[in-house]
Amino acid sequence: MAKTNPGRFFEDYKLGQVIAHAVPRTLSGGERALYHALYPARHALYSSDDFARACGLPAAPLDDMIAFHTVFGKTVPDVSLNAVANLGYAEGRFLMPVYPGDTLRSESEVIGLKQNSNGKSGVVYVRTRGLNQRAEVVLEYMRWVMVRKRDPEAAAPDTVIPALADVVDPGDLMIPPGLDFSGYDFTLAGEPHRWGDYEPGETIDHVDGVTIEEAEHMIATRLWQNTAKVHFDATFRPDGQRLIYGGHVISMARALSFNGLANAQMIVGLNGGAHANPCFSGDTVKAWSEVLDKAETDAPGVGAIRLRLVAVKGDAEPFALKGTDGKYSPDVLLDLDYWALMPR
Amino acid sequence: MAKTNPGRFFEDYKLGQVIAHAVPRTLSGGERALYHALYPARHALYSSDDFARACGLPAAPLDDMIAFHTVFGKTVPDVSLNAVANLGYAEGRFLMPVYPGDTLRSESEVIGLKQNSNGKSGVVYVRTRGLNQRAEVVLEYMRWVMVRKRDPEAAAPDTVIPALADVVDPGDLMIPPGLDFSGYDFTLAGEPHRWGDYEPGETIDHVDGVTIEEAEHMIATRLWQNTAKVHFDATFRPDGQRLIYGGHVISMARALSFNGLANAQMIVGLNGGAHANPCFSGDTVKAWSEVLDKAETDAPGVGAIRLRLVAVKGDAEPFALKGTDGKYSPDVLLDLDYWALMPR
Amino acid sequence: MAKTNPGRFFEDYKLGQVIAHAVPRTLSGGERALYHALYPARHALYSSDDFARACGLPAAPLDDMIAFHTVFGKTVPDVSLNAVANLGYAEGRFLMPVYPGDTLRSESEVIGLKQNSNGKSGVVYVRTRGLNQRAEVVLEYMRWVMVRKRDPEAAAPDTVIPALADVVDPGDLMIPPGLDFSGYDFTLAGEPHRWGDYEPGETIDHVDGVTIEEAEHMIATRLWQNTAKVHFDATFRPDGQRLIYGGHVISMARALSFNGLANAQMIVGLNGGAHANPCFSGDTVKAWSEVLDKAETDAPGVGAIRLRLVAVKGDAEPFALKGTDGKYSPDVLLDLDYWALMPR
Repeated sequence: MAKTNPGRFFEDYKLGQVIAHAVPRTLSGGERALYHALYPARHALYSSDDFARACGLPAAPLDDMIAFHTVFGKTVPDVSLNAVANLGYAEGRFLMPVYPGDTLRSESEVIGLKQNSNGKSGVVYVRTRGLNQRAEVVLEYMRWVMVRKRDPEAAAPDTVIPALADVVDPGDLMIPPGLDFSGYDFTLAGEPHRWGDYEPGETIDHVDGVTIEEAEHMIATRLWQNTAKVHFDATFRPDGQRLIYGGHVISMARALSFNGLANAQMIVGLNGGAHANPCFSGDTVKAWSEVLDKAETDAPGVGAIRLRLVAVKGDAEPFALKGTDGKYSPDVLLDLDYWALMPR
Repeated sequence: MAKTNPGRFFEDYKLGQVIAHAVPRTLSGGERALYHALYPARHALYSSDDFARACGLPAAPLDDMIAFHTVFGKTVPDVSLNAVANLGYAEGRFLMPVYPGDTLRSESEVIGLKQNSNGKSGVVYVRTRGLNQRAEVVLEYMRWVMVRKRDPEAAAPDTVIPALADVVDPGDLMIPPGLDFSGYDFTLAGEPHRWGDYEPGETIDHVDGVTIEEAEHMIATRLWQNTAKVHFDATFRPDGQRLIYGGHVISMARALSFNGLANAQMIVGLNGGAHANPCFSGDTVKAWSEVLDKAETDAPGVGAIRLRLVAVKGDAEPFALKGTDGKYSPDVLLDLDYWALMPR
Repeated sequence: MAKTNPGRFFEDYKLGQVIAHAVPRTLSGGERALYHALYPARHALYSSDDFARACGLPAAPLDDMIAFHTVFGKTVPDVSLNAVANLGYAEGRFLMPVYPGDTLRSESEVIGLKQNSNGKSGVVYVRTRGLNQRAEVVLEYMRWVMVRKRDPEAAAPDTVIPALADVVDPGDLMIPPGLDFSGYDFTLAGEPHRWGDYEPGETIDHVDGVTIEEAEHMIATRLWQNTAKVHFDATFRPDGQRLIYGGHVISMARALSFNGLANAQMIVGLNGGAHANPCFSGDTVKAWSEVLDKAETDAPGVGAIRLRLVAVKGDAEPFALKGTDGKYSPDVLLDLDYWALMPR
């Protein structure tokens, strides 16, 4: 067993350490077809080369979450194999669209460490970057996870907790060069609602639901080369259930949000996210959104909108997020906070 | 909920109205790979670029039903979201092959309206066209659906029932320019039977069966961006079953018909079709065909054959279609009438 | 039923007969995306064009088992439709990498025949070759299957049993022209272990497990146009179970073996293989390997390693293969013997 990867334990991480993650991946139209078959993804900019060209891009990029999952998946063997919990995301920015033919790899820098008071585990903060074949950063985000110690007696590192912004400043969002929504075709995009039609505080029930299947979440999770065994091996958990990769819920909810947010085309910022409760096969996932903020941009016809995207399961009433105790309701699966670009 | 799509109701359709459907889609080899993974599709012209070139085409087109499903899927949010029933198809013609790299969009014209006598619903007739990135029509068909009224008190429109042909006249079938079956390789195609070997009245039991899975029909249906919730949400129907998209049954039966009709290569006409009974996960689908007619064409070595394709479930005896009461047997899922091109 | 394929029976095979199998197939990035979604495949040479170029190849080839399954699938209607058992493989060699855009077809030559003493069936030995669009042989292997007779009274052919090597001589392995592992990036590949770190006799438990789903094995098997009904029709076997294509287990085990053998990049030889026990949906598949041999090659930085790859199900202890009676343990699904290329 000496040659298999045991994963890193808390004491294996050092502040400033940069981990180059393995297995670069060339993406093609195949990944897009699969993504659109696994999720009801319909944002026109990512579906049609012609629509994308009319918006100033060279072709339809791959869905932003394809880039995210590909970059994230590569970090799993190095960051989360011995993770007890995925605690949070912050300061995520999508810096450059990813196109079929691009090759992505990932690297993570350790930016914070804090041993837990029980001495058995600690929190590791990383800044993960996805790079393309030209070594351009296409995506970066901060993430923190709780990781077990190999040896509870190992000395604790100095505690360093990075200062992380609650929200990406809209001035820091990257707008793809050339993006121009001034001639945006609302009919082909599927809905008439523009940036000016949404107001902070507004909530949208996306109505549709999808019942989750084992085969689908495993196909999706493997596609990103995410190999955490809890997603694939029904004998791993005592209850015989395979835990569904949180990113599967993110993509399902984002795709469902088309119905009411068809024009929230490009994801450019990831302010934060919590996988509030686990998701299992058989759950029926629905989604609702809340407009949190809006900002102007310099690109022609392009506005930024900050959205809360909530995935729930079963018969959960929309718009209920937390109980009076401040805890997420048991039906809430995901609470995601992101910036998207919309035609003004 | 104001921003989500409630779908059109009967009184929202006006005669002559043209609806441009949303979300154009660029197709790639990814869609073909998925199609061939979801159905046992093996028609050589659609599997091999070399085989297609030897038949005078520039490359292997995407399977005709990929084009059909893509065009059809786009109409769902506008035509069938509030449909009670999909009543029929007629005058379908495949006008131009679709290749990887093509971008398809759809539009439908309302060509007929008839309110039902109960005043609660009506029948809408549409002519749907699929267009490629050069605005060429690749496919057109008539379809009629029963749609609920929003307001039972709304006035009935004038009744207009379009005259629809029972069968596409073989002289109206479009043969792709350059198609030449005079050097057709029957060995590589998989069967020796040519156009002259089939006679009207002949029936063929395609023998093989496939048991349907939830994950597969949902993956297929999403791939066409068909989002009707009845296919995806197990909590939507009182019986907890997801209704399978009728097009999934069409594609399964067509692929199964390879065994006995391997040389019925190109679908060029859709004369009619009925989804006789619903299909659910766990059903085992089998298929049989009946030769209805034959016609010559001007293309070298190319004949047209008119086929009835019947999908059944379970242990249904082949060749039984309707009972003495004229109704479809409960085991019949699909009764499709189409024209295909075959080597002479 | 006269037009459907009844398959060949034992008395239909003649020594020296060459069968050209039907339905050539053009492969694309779509097949690769699906392969990586169905199996946890992560070998860097097959995942990244850049990694492959750094190793002297023009781009990332399709996974070797994609080529194998595609070639194998085409033989099913001609070789194994009436097979009682798949008895063995030998002398398999991967002669040329297969790239997206290549079109594969298959042909098999009958190289041996032996009627069984009961007169009801016989063993057919074939040499199968996969050819690309330039008629270059990309792959060849010997295989023998037990096939039913149509007529038990038919005369037995002369018995000819071909002499098959137990192991492909390492001098006969084809190294792709230009392959150069002298600048191999072990970090991007995922593990530091090189050819010199493995010793004959060494065993590796690949640790991870995957629970098999019906939808997944059917999607995979159809992708290779393998249409044996036992894999698809739940009503075919008396027990209502769909037998999983043995190649699905091979690909699953090979992909799982990444964990410990990430640098066993290219499969170049297939010495033998046995599908020891059937695999069904719900089984959790794990894998272990044993190093059987090593050989040097002339290519810069490239060594050959001979590996036994064993797939097991359930809670099987690793490294147990056969009982004291010499029979495979009931938990063993696959025992495969192959040559791979590794950086030295």
